[in-house]
Amino acid sequence: MAEAATVRRSRITPEREGELYSAVLDLLREVGYDALTMDAVAARTRSSKATLYRQWGGKAELVVRALRHQKPLHLADIDTGSLRGDLHALAVCQGDSQMEADSALMRGLSMAVHANPDLLQAFRELFIEPELEDLRGVLQRAVDRGEIRPNNPALDYVLHMMVGAFAARTMIDAQPPTQAFLISYIDAVVLPALGA
Amino acid sequence: MAEAATVRRSRITPEREGELYSAVLDLLREVGYDALTMDAVAARTRSSKATLYRQWGGKAELVVRALRHQKPLHLADIDTGSLRGDLHALAVCQGDSQMEADSALMRGLSMAVHANPDLLQAFRELFIEPELEDLRGVLQRAVDRGEIRPNNPALDYVLHMMVGAFAARTMIDAQPPTQAFLISYIDAVVLPALGA
Repeated sequence: MAEAATVRRSRITPEREGELYSAVLDLLREVGYDALTMDAVAARTRSSKATLYRQWGGKAELVVRALRHQKPLHLADIDTGSLRGDLHALAVCQGDSQMEADSALMRGLSMAVHANPDLLQAFRELFIEPELEDLRGVLQRAVDRGEIRPNNPALDYVLHMMVGAFAARTMIDAQPPTQAFLISYIDAVVLPALGA
Repeated sequence: MAEAATVRRSRITPEREGELYSAVLDLLREVGYDALTMDAVAARTRSSKATLYRQWGGKAELVVRALRHQKPLHLADIDTGSLRGDLHALAVCQGDSQMEADSALMRGLSMAVHANPDLLQAFRELFIEPELEDLRGVLQRAVDRGEIRPNNPALDYVLHMMVGAFAARTMIDAQPPTQAFLISYIDAVVLPALGA
């Protein structure tokens, strides 16, 4: 799926691709996943629907690629020399207002995946799996440095801990996740669970 | 709020109250929070709307009390003698199919609270706060037994860890939370983070 998409996407410039993704996320915030149509994306971006389908195959892949594209920092680009440094870098890679906006987007998507199996599949293949792969790299370096025991069972749950705190924050504390909250949570929960 | 509600609710029998709550949750599963009306609840339960408003004040409080009422086990009733035993008891208090149904309900609510400030307020006052209060009791006993240091910073995040894993499970692993997953997560993450 990723390879086919790369071939398809090579037909437009990176700038144009970025514009398209921004427009898709704007629409997603305005109307939500279920009401978002390829017609609306075509109109908003002055593209033909045929082009959109040729480049992305469908709504699910287009939305997920747009989400991943807007991430300000990818785990693969982080290597501070310590696990604590790497996780903190992830926590502070975007400002609090952007984090709140993202939190709302992801909440909407987390509802939509349950009603749309193709969205769930695209989300797992094009978003979660690459994140897990990058995370495994970060954790493997920590294991290699001797910061984590290689058989620590919490290694399988780092993404659950992080995504979970992000998702639970608003409901439990009636305030959105912030950099300060994530750093405090990383130091209090994630690193101790990993024995780091 | 809780005291006023107790006075109001004393006018109906516990059996009738349980029937009403079941009907409310059925409706919630069928149409979601936003489309759920007091008219529909009145029709489904053969009550008058005036009665519903007198007993519960409004839709938000009625829905949240119904959610809390259906919980199979409250933390306040758990005291196994160890923290691990207490958390495991919570994880296995309902079967996997019931847990999946609950997970869907809570997901719907977690979306609705963001669009309905009165629902968020009721949810925090009548659901989250009592849960946190009960959880503090469980954790205080663990501190008193010497299982956790009283100043462990993870003490503030136990609900985030648990709710978060529950919420993140489906999206990350494409499967619903199960008893086996929760027990594994408690042993790998929650207890080590608490230093227990």
